[in-house]
Amino acid sequence: MNGLLTDLYELTMAAGYFAAGKSDQVATFEFGIRRLPAHRNYVVAAGLPQVVDYLLNLRFGEEEIAYLRSLPQFASAGSAFFDYLRGFRFTGDLFAVPEGTVLFEGEPLLTVRAPVIEAQLPETYLLSAVTFQTLVAAKAARCVTAAEGRSVIEFGTRRAHTPEAGTLGGRAAYIGGCAGTSNTLTGFRYGVPVMGTAAHSWVMSFSCEVDSFRKLQALLGANTVHLIDTYDTLEGARRAVKVGGPMWGVRIDSGDFLALSRAVRGILDEGGLREAKIMVSGDLDEYRIRDLLRAGAPIDAFGVGTQLATSADAPNMGAIYKMVEVEICGIKRFTAKYSEDKISYPGAKQVFRDKHRDVIARSGECGSGEALLRPVMLGGHLIEPLPDLEQARRRAAESIAWLPERLRELEAAGEPWPVIHSRELRALTEQTRANRPR
Amino acid sequence: MNGLLTDLYELTMAAGYFAAGKSDQVATFEFGIRRLPAHRNYVVAAGLPQVVDYLLNLRFGEEEIAYLRSLPQFASAGSAFFDYLRGFRFTGDLFAVPEGTVLFEGEPLLTVRAPVIEAQLPETYLLSAVTFQTLVAAKAARCVTAAEGRSVIEFGTRRAHTPEAGTLGGRAAYIGGCAGTSNTLTGFRYGVPVMGTAAHSWVMSFSCEVDSFRKLQALLGANTVHLIDTYDTLEGARRAVKVGGPMWGVRIDSGDFLALSRAVRGILDEGGLREAKIMVSGDLDEYRIRDLLRAGAPIDAFGVGTQLATSADAPNMGAIYKMVEVEICGIKRFTAKYSEDKISYPGAKQVFRDKHRDVIARSGECGSGEALLRPVMLGGHLIEPLPDLEQARRRAAESIAWLPERLRELEAAGEPWPVIHSRELRALTEQTRANRPR
Repeated sequence: MNGLLTDLYELTMAAGYFAAGKSDQVATFEFGIRRLPAHRNYVVAAGLPQVVDYLLNLRFGEEEIAYLRSLPQFASAGSAFFDYLRGFRFTGDLFAVPEGTVLFEGEPLLTVRAPVIEAQLPETYLLSAVTFQTLVAAKAARCVTAAEGRSVIEFGTRRAHTPEAGTLGGRAAYIGGCAGTSNTLTGFRYGVPVMGTAAHSWVMSFSCEVDSFRKLQALLGANTVHLIDTYDTLEGARRAVKVGGPMWGVRIDSGDFLALSRAVRGILDEGGLREAKIMVSGDLDEYRIRDLLRAGAPIDAFGVGTQLATSADAPNMGAIYKMVEVEICGIKRFTAKYSEDKISYPGAKQVFRDKHRDVIARSGECGSGEALLRPVMLGGHLIEPLPDLEQARRRAAESIAWLPERLRELEAAGEPWPVIHSRELRALTEQTRANRPR
Repeated sequence: MNGLLTDLYELTMAAGYFAAGKSDQVATFEFGIRRLPAHRNYVVAAGLPQVVDYLLNLRFGEEEIAYLRSLPQFASAGSAFFDYLRGFRFTGDLFAVPEGTVLFEGEPLLTVRAPVIEAQLPETYLLSAVTFQTLVAAKAARCVTAAEGRSVIEFGTRRAHTPEAGTLGGRAAYIGGCAGTSNTLTGFRYGVPVMGTAAHSWVMSFSCEVDSFRKLQALLGANTVHLIDTYDTLEGARRAVKVGGPMWGVRIDSGDFLALSRAVRGILDEGGLREAKIMVSGDLDEYRIRDLLRAGAPIDAFGVGTQLATSADAPNMGAIYKMVEVEICGIKRFTAKYSEDKISYPGAKQVFRDKHRDVIARSGECGSGEALLRPVMLGGHLIEPLPDLEQARRRAAESIAWLPERLRELEAAGEPWPVIHSRELRALTEQTRANRPR
């Protein structure tokens, strides 16, 4: 992992901490969800393996160091600092909620405790890697909820913000409950089921549609999905019947999905293809899925692209990575930000979840229910293998099933999940505020 | 470049084209802008080097091939197909508009002409790599327009959809006119100026704010930007005055930017720091920049993060990659899609731009004005080095300066740029439609 993949100010601060003799001072930073996107009642934590991979492999090579030395901002940084970067390793601790955990506004998602430079540098990468996946996993969960048992397949790599975002988005969507993804690399890297058969260009490369269907069926057998809307959707459905043979079914990618799915269902049933399924794709999101099913559309699977892969209704979220504790001259100090529009709580934390509420507490407190933040890395080492993707997906499904009905709705719940702060945390906050530098 | 970084259906179609004996048939695919995002009057082409890099290096390794063989979709694909993948190279032609070119609705951005499998496979990657950068470059141009000569700096990697998206977003923002980026890797890889000094955590890691300012100034000299809103913005400004010394200026990251920038300007001026500049950051976009400047805010630079790095008002765009020509049994056939809500024009194209309008023509036509699509790769080889990033940035600035006033506005222009289709292209479209398979 290239140490330069971070904001420059993380590196100028590193040089500053180093020059100020602070490189041994331990700091704790907290990655928290400051605000949920409008209409979202929860998010689903995702992206932890990317965090661990980054922290384990964060390095500065010679070319990278030479680049930094060439920048005016590092003109006064001594060569001892560059030697420090040359030997840089993350030696700290990481605590995190497991992937698939449902989280609410104001809650911490992970905590990094390390010598201050090591804790500061990862800010940019962590925010970017985790926030995006967490938004996509939650969006997937909303689509899956709306689909009421039908399959939702992630189709959005082409719309994602870079191909890499598409690959990780497919992973996050699977955690959120999608049945699979169109992204082949997501399947290869992460074991997510991959799906897809043919595009309009396939159909158009033959002189007649029925030939293109025959060739596809010969290749894919029971996995065949005929894309039937290249010329005329109903005619396409009749040709799928004509070709027959084992097939998964057909896909409709344009038009009035309600009317077309009904007509196509009729054609397939009349043609003896009662087992053949209908997939739709194109400009879908959780609301359209819900509306189609409420209207009784006989659709078996939804391919969701753009809206899912870009979390289009909420392409970003107010996540923060803030210093909550720091040693100053060997004395632990709690820190928080109290500027009028951006308030944070000091100190390392734990979240205790029971059936009725979440309690955000100080990290050393005892609480009842499940403690969400768990140790992941200690002293720079992964303490045990992370839960695998299937476990993360199961945890998400269980977490969401456990939510009160109102929070599973697509609209913003009038009453959010209760998240309160423990008495100890409130006391610390008051005390830190009273003693803060001014 | 991992050949699996594409949608599975590109690969099942590849197997199908191969099985159908079509692998020598030449096809032309067009990457076009079907629809501009609402409120956007133009986009700015960006991402071409990533396309070229992909096409030059697209390969299938043994592990990737073994993975494909393990999938049920490839159970009937013969081993000759996997041998084909093993030796896969892109041997085709790429035509593209240069980076920095302003484009409008309905226009092609690039064209790939190659044996059909080679032209089909890149669809997913190309759409994802180019669309995102093109949106960010345009968003940057809007922010820069709104800033009326003040600097706009891209600060959004932490909000981007993966760290890689942040890195490429910083590049695209520079093409669109940003003065620089916070992303250090963007600087290292692409030579974009990098900016940034310190965060709130820096200030909080000292027992008093003025100490943190002194240490920063000692390190950064004339590049110092004091972040003054950790405790109290006006007090912060007074402390910046107290520290004095050469500095770039101060940054305000929260609060009422209009009132605070005025008050801070007064404090700096009174303190003899008339040369010190004021930067603001936090929840900015082109509209807020415009409104602040119209209200007379004495702001010298804007750090724009979330809204820019995620193109938040338009996190996606209706871009398409469609087959427009294909050989069938050795005969060139023009193709297009005529389903009711997704119409495309057949055949390889050229765009001629003059002072009054764009004319989309057939690729062989003569036209007046600048021909926007230029050959980039022929026979799988790059024909000459791509224009560098500075040239792309200059082209964007010139393209935008050349736009009629109404199209540079932040609101949707009542009258868009005229984009018409040549008589030959219209004739071909009619003919293709009349002769299309049904």
